[in-house]
Amino acid sequence: MNKNLMKWVQEGNITIPRALLTYYKELNINEEELVLLLHVFSFLETGNDFPTPPEISTRMTISVSQCSELLRKLIQKGFITIEDGQSTDGIRYEKYSIEPLWEKLVQAFLMGQNQQQKEQNQQTEM
Amino acid sequence: MNKNLMKWVQEGNITIPRALLTYYKELNINEEELVLLLHVFSFLETGNDFPTPPEISTRMTISVSQCSELLRKLIQKGFITIEDGQSTDGIRYEKYSIEPLWEKLVQAFLMGQNQQQKEQNQQTEM
Amino acid sequence: MNKNLMKWVQEGNITIPRALLTYYKELNINEEELVLLLHVFSFLETGNDFPTPPEISTRMTISVSQCSELLRKLIQKGFITIEDGQSTDGIRYEKYSIEPLWEKLVQAFLMGQNQQQKEQNQQTEM
Amino acid sequence: MNKNLMKWVQEGNITIPRALLTYYKELNINEEELVLLLHVFSFLETGNDFPTPPEISTRMTISVSQCSELLRKLIQKGFITIEDGQSTDGIRYEKYSIEPLWEKLVQAFLMGQNQQQKEQNQQTEM
Repeated sequence: MNKNLMKWVQEGNITIPRALLTYYKELNINEEELVLLLHVFSFLETGNDFPTPPEISTRMTISVSQCSELLRKLIQKGFITIEDGQSTDGIRYEKYSIEPLWEKLVQAFLMGQNQQQKEQNQQTEM
Repeated sequence: MNKNLMKWVQEGNITIPRALLTYYKELNINEEELVLLLHVFSFLETGNDFPTPPEISTRMTISVSQCSELLRKLIQKGFITIEDGQSTDGIRYEKYSIEPLWEKLVQAFLMGQNQQQKEQNQQTEM
Repeated sequence: MNKNLMKWVQEGNITIPRALLTYYKELNINEEELVLLLHVFSFLETGNDFPTPPEISTRMTISVSQCSELLRKLIQKGFITIEDGQSTDGIRYEKYSIEPLWEKLVQAFLMGQNQQQKEQNQQTEM
Repeated sequence: MNKNLMKWVQEGNITIPRALLTYYKELNINEEELVLLLHVFSFLETGNDFPTPPEISTRMTISVSQCSELLRKLIQKGFITIEDGQSTDGIRYEKYSIEPLWEKLVQAFLMGQNQQQKEQNQQTEM
């Protein structure tokens, strides 16, 4: 009992800004893409810097090739970038970064706030 | 500047067990359904106990009627229940609960742990 | 087994901006006060809007009167405010808000960022 | 503006089981020790596996030597362990683990649940 509960605790949680749920649509991200981004985020957090399409698609309801295709699209749209890393012993490797996603989200959030502000001002004027 | 950052902080975060990402597929939940469940979870957390299909679909890439249909399916499959609440002044109202989702997730997680344990035992025996 | 794990899941998590850990000292908050603020935050999240010193001190290593004293100090310093609420049937009640804590934290964070920026500029100039 | 908000997002959040707040007292952890544990947890999450007393105490209201002393006590009480790591190029290093804290917390939580169960049974019998 103790042991299963410990396993659960070790799995941990994934925390995302609520704004991601509110604004992904504005970023032209659909639900499948959002979940794929969450998977990449989760893999990064748990130390897998470059999850492969087979690794990701195992957890999704899409095929490996559909997963590859989605990943390619998300990179093309600029939500994920591939960066170069270098391990302590000098071996170079590739890793994903979803920093661009947060940047675009912050932009969308700020635009949303401006929009709300404008609408409030208009209502006050009327 | 200060003001927009405060707005971001007030939006807050949404935290889910990592196991939900790892096991939703086992629960026969697809990506669209997962995201709809996240929206319901988020609405509940922010005090909207009974979000309507229009409210939910505004944030999703699906239509109101598709959203109604998905909600109905998730209730039918037993991931969401509708419960009766009563406000302090005696007015009855309906609210969603996603407790059943967590229960099914916990079951799937425990089955997954058992499975892993069995496989490890078999490997030890071989 | 299932049951205890469900209880754990129902307890849920508490998520705070990492900046709170990094900056509470700058806000002249000490460790005891920080933990008391976390307790108030947690009570608010779980629907107890106005936890009493006995309720809070039960979970802390300090006495009820020390807890009252700390609460008073945190209100005086402007980290917690007492706000008026009104239930749906018109009964007025008091509730705590820790919005002021987040505002002060955001200010400290922005000042910290400015400071870092200045230091980097000076280093570039030298 | 955008830039400061991005910095905030990059700082991220720290998520802990709510049970830690409810049960640390049962584990004979006081508020100062709890916050020190949170600092260690946060350092681990952000990639600093072996934060030094000077690094930790900079963020706390206690001196370096008090911090060393507290760390020693937490290791002695079995909440933190020092583990051996090995980098990819074979260099050995030490790192902290707070897994033992989660184990003790899970135990305290399960005992608390049992206790509640017993009390409920007794009330039913009466």
